[in-house]
Formats: sequence, structure tokens, C-alpha cells
Amino acid sequence: MEIPTGSYDYTSYNKFVDFLDQLRQSALHGCQLDPAISLVAGISGGPDSLCLLDSLHRLGFRVIVAHFDHALRPESGAEAALVSEMAAQRGLPFATAREDVTAFAREQHLSIEEAARTLRYRFLFGVARRVGAQAVAVGHNADDQVETVLMHLLRGSGLAGLKGMSSRSLQEGWDTSIPLVRPLLDFWRVQIEEYCRDQGLSPVQDASNQDTTYFRNRLRHELIPLLQDYNPQVKQVLRRTANVLAGDAEVLASASAQAWEDLLEEFLPGACALKADGLLALPVGLQRMVMRRAIAGLRPGLRDIDFDTIERALAFAARPSRSRSLDLVQGLTLLRDGNHLFVTEAGVVPGDAGRPQVPDGLVLSLEIPGQVIFGDGWVLRAERYEADADYSAAGVWEAWLDAEKIDATLEVCASSPGERFQPLGMNGRSQKLSDFWINVGLPRRARRGWPLVFSSGQVAWVPGYRLDHRFRVGETSKRLVRLSLIKNPA
Amino acid sequence: MEIPTGSYDYTSYNKFVDFLDQLRQSALHGCQLDPAISLVAGISGGPDSLCLLDSLHRLGFRVIVAHFDHALRPESGAEAALVSEMAAQRGLPFATAREDVTAFAREQHLSIEEAARTLRYRFLFGVARRVGAQAVAVGHNADDQVETVLMHLLRGSGLAGLKGMSSRSLQEGWDTSIPLVRPLLDFWRVQIEEYCRDQGLSPVQDASNQDTTYFRNRLRHELIPLLQDYNPQVKQVLRRTANVLAGDAEVLASASAQAWEDLLEEFLPGACALKADGLLALPVGLQRMVMRRAIAGLRPGLRDIDFDTIERALAFAARPSRSRSLDLVQGLTLLRDGNHLFVTEAGVVPGDAGRPQVPDGLVLSLEIPGQVIFGDGWVLRAERYEADADYSAAGVWEAWLDAEKIDATLEVCASSPGERFQPLGMNGRSQKLSDFWINVGLPRRARRGWPLVFSSGQVAWVPGYRLDHRFRVGETSKRLVRLSLIKNPA
Repeated sequence: MEIPTGSYDYTSYNKFVDFLDQLRQSALHGCQLDPAISLVAGISGGPDSLCLLDSLHRLGFRVIVAHFDHALRPESGAEAALVSEMAAQRGLPFATAREDVTAFAREQHLSIEEAARTLRYRFLFGVARRVGAQAVAVGHNADDQVETVLMHLLRGSGLAGLKGMSSRSLQEGWDTSIPLVRPLLDFWRVQIEEYCRDQGLSPVQDASNQDTTYFRNRLRHELIPLLQDYNPQVKQVLRRTANVLAGDAEVLASASAQAWEDLLEEFLPGACALKADGLLALPVGLQRMVMRRAIAGLRPGLRDIDFDTIERALAFAARPSRSRSLDLVQGLTLLRDGNHLFVTEAGVVPGDAGRPQVPDGLVLSLEIPGQVIFGDGWVLRAERYEADADYSAAGVWEAWLDAEKIDATLEVCASSPGERFQPLGMNGRSQKLSDFWINVGLPRRARRGWPLVFSSGQVAWVPGYRLDHRFRVGETSKRLVRLSLIKNPA
Repeated sequence: MEIPTGSYDYTSYNKFVDFLDQLRQSALHGCQLDPAISLVAGISGGPDSLCLLDSLHRLGFRVIVAHFDHALRPESGAEAALVSEMAAQRGLPFATAREDVTAFAREQHLSIEEAARTLRYRFLFGVARRVGAQAVAVGHNADDQVETVLMHLLRGSGLAGLKGMSSRSLQEGWDTSIPLVRPLLDFWRVQIEEYCRDQGLSPVQDASNQDTTYFRNRLRHELIPLLQDYNPQVKQVLRRTANVLAGDAEVLASASAQAWEDLLEEFLPGACALKADGLLALPVGLQRMVMRRAIAGLRPGLRDIDFDTIERALAFAARPSRSRSLDLVQGLTLLRDGNHLFVTEAGVVPGDAGRPQVPDGLVLSLEIPGQVIFGDGWVLRAERYEADADYSAAGVWEAWLDAEKIDATLEVCASSPGERFQPLGMNGRSQKLSDFWINVGLPRRARRGWPLVFSSGQVAWVPGYRLDHRFRVGETSKRLVRLSLIKNPA
């Protein structure tokens, strides 16, 4: 540990040592950081972030300073310079980027706040990937945690929101293997401000913290002081509640995963089949989680599945009406057939008849453009497109690939034992197809003949499920290939 | 359904029908009430309770009207008369009682509010038992639910508090088989008040609802309106959150029961042994629940085991210090020995050496006063006491019985197969000793020779565990017998 520079009295020195001791514990255990591996710290220039930078560096962690310039206020350039200067004084690597948040918000139909957050985290995780960092660290503190819990409570949220933020978590949207860590989550704002004062750090008080919205500010300055009038310890109480609920949520997640495994009969593209009796025998909390997961599996983009939808679905599962089907949400339907409960896309007929199968040993050549026909009326088609084609509404039975990365002639056949591929979204990690089948819930009897598209012997697409990482479309792609699998009416 | 009397317009009639329809669903499904069996309704005279009385009666439920007169305000006698009158008008049975709440509060060191609540529920469940009612119904509404959730949030509570009140629950403290039900829990206060107005009911607006304390009133009139300014739907949101969390809590309870069963090695009087490695392999939420249950098992009276105590215990379990023991709470100690984790009373040595065993076939006669010696230095002693003896600090190795209910000479021996007794606290229901052993966690090898005290062939005491219901001390007991089991130092 480095001895602080500047003048200080004995009391503040003791406080400083206590602060760093507690932070070390939190960084090593809560955040599970390894002092030998670099980490990216997102530094806005505000008190939390300057304290994070200074304290982690003093404790010997290998900090890479990253500053995202939101360019929303005239002084943002000066703030970037301040952070860069702090990094230079300490001999730390510095990365920065400046993007047009307003334009991005307009393009993506996001609020300024969401757009800023998206670009900022995209930048931070981009830096982390480039330098091989173990984690991205941000400066959220215990007051932020309390405000987050209250915000979720007021807006309506189950355990997932009430448990607040975690010291360490994987945010699949940003990266599937690099975690987000919050080493300051156990420290109150006043402690952090005192640290900054005592260590002579000069934070930008108005540093653009885009999370600090009007709503959050009202909580901070109006609601929390009122709640302290009901219970002076309310902040401590809410932080502890979040902590306890986080533990409970973990238990629930594991119970839910077990229930899902027990109840899932199959998860085909467009249709999920569950054991109805098993579902109804579960505690209602687990029934909700399983139903939620079935819907989320078919509608991955659907945020916040409505509570009423889940309740209607469970009521129907328990007492199917004579019509035997229920409209759920966004075109999904719930069907009960004997002991099977199906969540399906409109028009998908659940059951074996709907499954594409390639006869054993058959290898089909697929020209681009061109098509092959196999099995029971199934057609695999390849077409060429320009880079500006709009494929935002692509379904599971189609895939868009970078034309320069694949062969001019592809092959369609079933898998061989031990086959591997790199499922998109796993950052280029490879997985055995046999494990992939289990994860996605394809029933055993459908696996052997499931059609795959190969380019130079590598799996390029698993129809209905996943593109291979190596063939994905990127910002530099010049031409595209669209693959699609359809069933011709008999 | 009875047609309402009095004048009403079409709209209010429709509302009335909707109200009763929804209440019927709630009573039949949420509360699981059987229309053919009587139920006791606690009627204070306030709007909720009058609505409860009137609506359940109209729906054809067999209501027994019960009013507890807290005698805290001069007008309480008139309120009792009003409720009695309402019951008479409808031809319903009526029960009432009047007790000195203030004196009871002083005697029992309770707040007036707690004392009133204790006496009221004791009365309601007493009536329910006497008449063989299926349930006790009370008038809590959706606003009460929201206030309860907020109260628990502000005072610090995990899921157990945040889930609020249930439509149907067993309150072991009041009765182990008659549930408390809340048919109005899904109705807002304004709906209930409107019902009273439309049906010409005249509630006592100041009816002594002892739950409506100053704290709750402030929530109602100050905090909730402010929260509605943040989110106009906040009441609906909080009610739904309670509903969702109740489902989650049920899942957790079942996961926790499973973990307890898997981890418990033995639960002897004064010592609980857990498998340390199994405990540490669990998600931290379950670790907390198991540790909490072990402590609660040894200190049944201990309310709200402190969060820090649990965290210290788990930290010790993971990394026992060189001292190998940790002071927990109220004289309990945590020890780790190899893969065994013991929560023990101070002075209790865990392990086989500490267990009393009566040799096979041996039957000892125990005079009162007198003593018998058996096994490895164990002494069972019987003494006589007057009724005013103070036995408030009695431990698990002693029992106090009504001298008039037992024989002058008792017998001490081990159990025979199929033995039954009436464990105290089960309202006189009898249980097989073999099932009792499983519940309390006595290891199999200790069961066979465990000493029992018999009077006229009936089990009177299971040392270390439980008195028999039939021999308990009551308010009319004139003389007492103290039984105790001790181990003489070798």
C-alpha cells in the first residue's frame, strides 16, 4: 500500500487505512479481483470514480483508466483532460472515446440516458476485451444502491430489482465472460467524498453521470430524507435488505433452473413443450418462473413480461378452457394437449411432424444463390444481398452471414459425433454440439438428423438455433448471404 | 345470493354484484373456505369488519360473529351492542368477551397494542375451537397490505415481511390447525367504504383497531400520498410485489426445508450438528436459512435473529479461527470439528457421550419426591413445588407438571414400538413417537434407549424435548411437580 501524500492528521490517516482495508476485502472477495491481472475502471471524473481510481491503484490493482466523453456538455472535453491527467500522474494506461450520444439516441429510439449508458458500457467492455482485462469496474456506492432499491420498488419489480446491484455480475448484453464489478458498493457517499477531500482529489462535481436523472435526484433529496424521519437507519436497512434478497434470489435461480430441467420436454424453434402435471405440482412461485422462461425463450427481446400474462397462462394451464388455446403475448399461444403444455408461435404445430431431418449419410451441395430439398418437404435456400439489407426482423429459421467469410458452395448434412462450433454470443468460444443440444433443449430423437450448414467443413449455421461466430455480419461486411429453412406445404 | 335491501341505482347494483362475485372467488379459492362449515369472523364494528360480516353472510357462508371488547375507550360497550345488533338482525350466532387489556399489558410487559392483539386473537381462536369453525376471518384490506409492506420495508425485513399478509395462513401461535383468513385482502379501502354506504351499513368510524397505530397512520396519510406522486400506481405496484414475493417465499421455504433435511446430522437438546461441507456448498441464501433455523431450534423464543450474527456464523464456518469456537447469541456457541459444525448451549459437549440411554428392558420406579439413576451417571429427579414456583427459566432438561394429574409413583423406561403421546403445543393431538423423533432430529441410534417418564402407562415427559399436553400446568393447578434429568460428573 502506498502512503498517502500531502498533509494529514492521525485520525484521518487511520480512517484512510480503514477505508483501504475494507476496499481490499471488497475487491478481493466481493468482486473477486485478481491483483495480478489488469482491470478497466470507468472514470467519469466525479467523486466516486476518482476515489475508485486512486484507491484501487494504491492497493496495487492494475488499473486501466477509461473515460467515455458523452460530449453532451461544453465542459466535457476538459473533464476528459482531467481524467487523462490523473492517469498520467500515476503512470496508468488511459483510454478514451467521444461519441455523438444525441444522434445515437435518435437513431436507436432511445432516451438520452439510455443511449449514453449503452455507448459508455459498449466502450468500456470494448477496451476490456482489447486489453484482456479481467473486469470492468464502476464507482456505484451504497447510496446508489439504496436509491436503486427504492426506484425498483416504486416502479414495480420483484426480487430481481429489489436485490439491487451486485458487487460482481455478468451482464450478458455487454460481455459473456468479462464481469462488471462495483468495489465501492459497500461505501457511503459521505465516506467517498471524505476520501476525496483527504487525498486532495478534485472531482468534477457536475461530471456527467447520466444515471443521475431527475427521478433519482428526487429520491435522494426528498424521499430518502423523509424515510429517515420514519427510521433514521433506513439507508442501512435498505442496503441490508438488498443484500439479503440477493442471497434469496440466488437460491430461487437455482430452484428455478432445476424446475426448468425437470419440466422441459423440448424447446424447438417456435415451440416449447412442458410437462403440465409437473408444472402444476410446483409452488406457484416456481410455476411463474418456468412460464416466464418459456416465453422469454421464444421472445428473447421481450423485456418485463407482464405479470398478468403469467397469471393468465397459469390459470389456463390449471383449467384449460374448451377452446384449448390461449393468446399469450406478441403472437405466442398456449396450448394444452393431455399432459403437454405448449407455448408456440402462431402457426407452429408442436410435435414431431414439424422437425426437419436429413437422412443419414446424405450430403447436399448448396450453391449461392440456390436451394436444396430434403426430408419431408423441407427447403434450404441461399440468397445474396447487399450490405444495406434490413434483416432486423430475421426469425429463427433464417440466418444472415458475411459473404466474404464463406465458400461459394456450402454443404448441408447432419452432424457427426464430436462436432463443435462457435455459437454466436459466446465471444468466439467453441462448444460441442452435443452440449449445445442439451442447453437449447432439442429432444434427443431430433438431434441425429438435424440439418446443419457447413462451409469448408466448419459449421456455419444451426438452423432454428444459432449462427456460428466466425461467419457473423460485422460493421465492415460488404456483401451478405441469407440462408433460410422453410417447409413447403405438402 | 341475497338481493340487497334499500334503494339503489343500476350502477351501484352492478358494482355490488361484481364485489360479491370477486369476494366469492377470493373466499373459495384464496381463503379456501367451505360454505358448508361455519367460520368465526372477528368484527370490531369498523367499515372493513361490517363489510366482511354482511358480504360473507349474503354469499351464504356460515358466519359466527365474534366481537372482542378491548374496554380501552368509554364507547366500547356501545360498539359491542352495535355488532351484536347486526348479528341479531341477520340471525347469526354472536360471541363476545371483554378483558382488561391495560392490566394484561402490564403483567406481560407488552405494549397496549400487542396486548390487545394477543387477547383479541386468543379470544377469536378460542371461539373457533369451541364451535369447531373452519377458520377465523378478519377484515384486512388491500390498503392494509400496502401499509404492511412499507412498514416492514422501513423497519428492515427480508422476504418474510415484504411479502405482506396472506389470504390464508396458519398462525402456529394461535392454533396449529385452524387458519386465519383474510377474504377482503384484494379489495381497496374505498371499495369497502362504498360497499358500506351502498348497503346502508353504519360502521363505527373510530372502532378500536389497535393495529392502526400512529406509525401506520403516518404511512397512510403522509408517505403513501407522496409515493403516489412518484408513481400514481404505487399502491397497485406494492400489492402486486407482495403477491409475487409471497410466491418466491414459498419456493424458498421448500428449498430451505430440503437443505435442512440434507444437512442436519442431529438435533439433540442443547446441540445441533450440521454437515459443514454441505452447508458451505449451498448458495449463501440457503446457508443463512439453515443457520437461522439451527439457532431458532435452540432458542425458540428468540425473535428476529440478528443479521450480523448469521453473517459472523457463516464466516466462521467457512474459516474457523484457531480458537475453534465462536460466541453466537444468548449463550449459544458455534464449534467446528472436522466436517461437523455444532451450534450448542454453553457447556454441552456434542457427541455420543452426552446422550442419556436406558438399558433395554429396564423399568425404574420414580417416587415423588425421589430420584433414579441409570446408564452413564444420568439422574432423573422428581420434586414437589407450590403453585407459585417460578419456572420461567426452565431448560430443556427439566419439566413442570400439574401434580394432580399424575400418579404418585412414575416410571422411567425406554419406548416400545408404536408408542404415542400428545406433544405440548399441538392442542392435544397425539403423535407417534417415531414421527416425533424424525421431526426433532434425534439420530436413529439414540432413539431406542431414550428415557421417557410414564404416568399410568402414558408418556408424561420426553426429557430434553417435550412435555405431554395432558400433564401441563394450567391456571387452576394447585401443586406442581418438577422433573429434571442431569448427568452427574463421573
